[in-house]
Amino acid sequence: MSRLIFNAFVMNTPSHLSTGMWRIPGDTSHRHDSLSHWTELAALLERGRFDALFMADTYGLSDVYGGSADAALRGAVQVPLHDPLLVVSAMANATRNLCFGVTCSTSYEAPFALARRFSTLDHLTQGRIGWNIVTSASDSAARNFGLEQQRDHASRYERAEEFLDVCYKLWEGSWEDGALLHDTERGVYVDPARVHRIGHRGAHFSVDGPHLVEPSPQRTPLLYQAGASAQGRAFASRHAECVFVGAPSKQALKRTVDKLRSAFSDAGRDPLSVPIIAEHTVITAPDSARAHEKHDAYKRVASEEGALVLMSGWTGIDLSQLEPDAPFEHRESHAIQSAVEAMSAADPGRVWSIAEIARWGTIGGLSPVTVGGPGEVADALQEWVADTGIDGFNLSYAAMDESFRDFVELIVPELQARGVYQREYAAGTFREKLFAGGARLSAPHPATAYRLS
Amino acid sequence: MSRLIFNAFVMNTPSHLSTGMWRIPGDTSHRHDSLSHWTELAALLERGRFDALFMADTYGLSDVYGGSADAALRGAVQVPLHDPLLVVSAMANATRNLCFGVTCSTSYEAPFALARRFSTLDHLTQGRIGWNIVTSASDSAARNFGLEQQRDHASRYERAEEFLDVCYKLWEGSWEDGALLHDTERGVYVDPARVHRIGHRGAHFSVDGPHLVEPSPQRTPLLYQAGASAQGRAFASRHAECVFVGAPSKQALKRTVDKLRSAFSDAGRDPLSVPIIAEHTVITAPDSARAHEKHDAYKRVASEEGALVLMSGWTGIDLSQLEPDAPFEHRESHAIQSAVEAMSAADPGRVWSIAEIARWGTIGGLSPVTVGGPGEVADALQEWVADTGIDGFNLSYAAMDESFRDFVELIVPELQARGVYQREYAAGTFREKLFAGGARLSAPHPATAYRLS
Repeated sequence: MSRLIFNAFVMNTPSHLSTGMWRIPGDTSHRHDSLSHWTELAALLERGRFDALFMADTYGLSDVYGGSADAALRGAVQVPLHDPLLVVSAMANATRNLCFGVTCSTSYEAPFALARRFSTLDHLTQGRIGWNIVTSASDSAARNFGLEQQRDHASRYERAEEFLDVCYKLWEGSWEDGALLHDTERGVYVDPARVHRIGHRGAHFSVDGPHLVEPSPQRTPLLYQAGASAQGRAFASRHAECVFVGAPSKQALKRTVDKLRSAFSDAGRDPLSVPIIAEHTVITAPDSARAHEKHDAYKRVASEEGALVLMSGWTGIDLSQLEPDAPFEHRESHAIQSAVEAMSAADPGRVWSIAEIARWGTIGGLSPVTVGGPGEVADALQEWVADTGIDGFNLSYAAMDESFRDFVELIVPELQARGVYQREYAAGTFREKLFAGGARLSAPHPATAYRLS
Repeated sequence: MSRLIFNAFVMNTPSHLSTGMWRIPGDTSHRHDSLSHWTELAALLERGRFDALFMADTYGLSDVYGGSADAALRGAVQVPLHDPLLVVSAMANATRNLCFGVTCSTSYEAPFALARRFSTLDHLTQGRIGWNIVTSASDSAARNFGLEQQRDHASRYERAEEFLDVCYKLWEGSWEDGALLHDTERGVYVDPARVHRIGHRGAHFSVDGPHLVEPSPQRTPLLYQAGASAQGRAFASRHAECVFVGAPSKQALKRTVDKLRSAFSDAGRDPLSVPIIAEHTVITAPDSARAHEKHDAYKRVASEEGALVLMSGWTGIDLSQLEPDAPFEHRESHAIQSAVEAMSAADPGRVWSIAEIARWGTIGGLSPVTVGGPGEVADALQEWVADTGIDGFNLSYAAMDESFRDFVELIVPELQARGVYQREYAAGTFREKLFAGGARLSAPHPATAYRLS
């Protein structure tokens, strides 16, 4: 598509990725416990023609740094963390077109219950709901659900595959189109011949069905996925309609995008048909100087310790045990590696210290940060697109809701003038607003194999 | 208390207990898939000073009757059935005082996730949330969650006890009051010394904690429970702050109330301190004649087959296999037994047929139905209170939303004039609106044993 996709990337917590920014005067992120916080944010984003509010989630605390959750709690590093699905109906009622992408894990929910939740929201929002599928990757979450530690990577994905099979059977294969008649004359609400048990028996789940909810506008919610590993990419290539990626440099991002496009091709899909949306943070003001002043002010408040707490959680390495000037060493395929790679690429041969990485990660976590006036930011975003092949951005905020307000007021008009940002929403569901097709998934998506009508 | 408690009893489905009534002209129950249905209903109930919207739920279809779900589907007998929790935030945003009691099962949810959901909603609603604790009692639900059939009665309650222990530890014993500082000066959001892991290790659950949500207005949501069995009463006597009961005759209801009050006494609680709320259906009009005309019109539409579908599900007996004129025999302690008992008491020695029971259950399920003008209805409700010792009513509807509109316009002013219906809401949380005490549970409720501060 020619226009770019923009989501607001948030979590039901203070200072999602720019840790410590809840301290900045006027920051409203602590108000995530109130309905008006969400309805006002949703209205602002709809005014700015954002595609969606995209909500991260997890079920555990960041407790690798220092061997406890103390630093996470002190700095409010993704804690308190409230449920994301429960704020959707209030926001949907305050908007008409904004869509909602919500992260839910296949590791800690029951597919029958999760499928009903998304079907319920797809009805209530008239098709404005998406699911960001994650398998979760923290031991602290596993320990809240009866496990000593998280399942290994391979078995998490195996479970996720079966989880989606169950959901597809419920969403696509249980109720035929036209099953719901609401025939007051004959007294037939549902035609039982068109509703089917799914009789799923698998290694992880046993689910009889039928689904309790009649077909919703999209049936299957729009499917987002964010898997960076080889297994994650394979999963995405089968299931994802949009992929969410994070990489702090153009080189790293382009590598990820290229690998994903290849995976789509290998799976028999048009590699360009799946939008790839990259995490990004924008700090802007009416002119460049003021944008940089704002960035400097943010940096004075944002927490380096908070960044290390997040990165310790992401890598599984307790960064508090290393001296600030110790060199950071690559290990396995953790998120942080791509950060270090990106920094290395920017300054070849240089070894980065823990302290430098911490400073680097305080705003927007590991996402790239673009600072500048409207023209500069628009240039930069378009360059990211041109240089990496991405289709849009998940914008994380530095200050709530200042970052989104600034973007709506300053950047959106600039991008609209350049013809790359939607001026009006397309009609219909989340899927229809993003793609030319209909409200439902199309073949050869695996979900469609379960259809009966 | 001198005033009576009134909840609206609904389910996220068409024609909850008066099956087939979705066929009546103007019935809006099929609009349960839309946000405006819920926000308009909530606003109506708040205008009528209802205490709460009380939502039933289950995870399975009624598939005992005829050995399949066909009749349930045809007649929309509690199907389609959408998630109840997800409509709350939209309704909360449309009201200021109406409270929400939502049914969730301890058999099919994970306590860590459920505790976070209720804490999230307690924050968003500013304390207007309650949990109707059920253990679920249907094989069809069990088969959607990996079981061949439901757990036996005793082990369901054993699991429920441990489930509540986990929730109490998370809600009451994980975060001390004052743990959340939001100290922008010192950069301390949460004092880690006042947040504690729960380290729960039990027969059913293993949950590390800490809770992800800071203390909400009520901490533990207001606890409703609806257990009619001896084990259910014992559970209620320990945990319930309000009890929801259903019995179709005064004799049967009084027996239930007396048994509950004894159970509260045995548990060391003031037997009158726990409100007992009874299911009831009111059909009214400006005068008696028109109310009876309305009732007759409803009876012509409401479905006898639907009533048998519900009762087959409740009893586990396939009533389609019995001739309509066959006598209904008592079995075990199912809901239907109390119905038959009540009918027997009304006409001693008489044996009721399946067909008669079906006709009897078409409006309001097994709840008593009061038909009349405002004065008659108010008299009748007050007599139910005087004769049985209940404290209020869960009003099921015959027609949506006509039944609630009629009640708000005709019965509420009559009851207010008699001084037994609140004219204004009390301030504060659900708990404060019902009881003289504070927003939090008081000793000796078992949840309070887990408190640290």
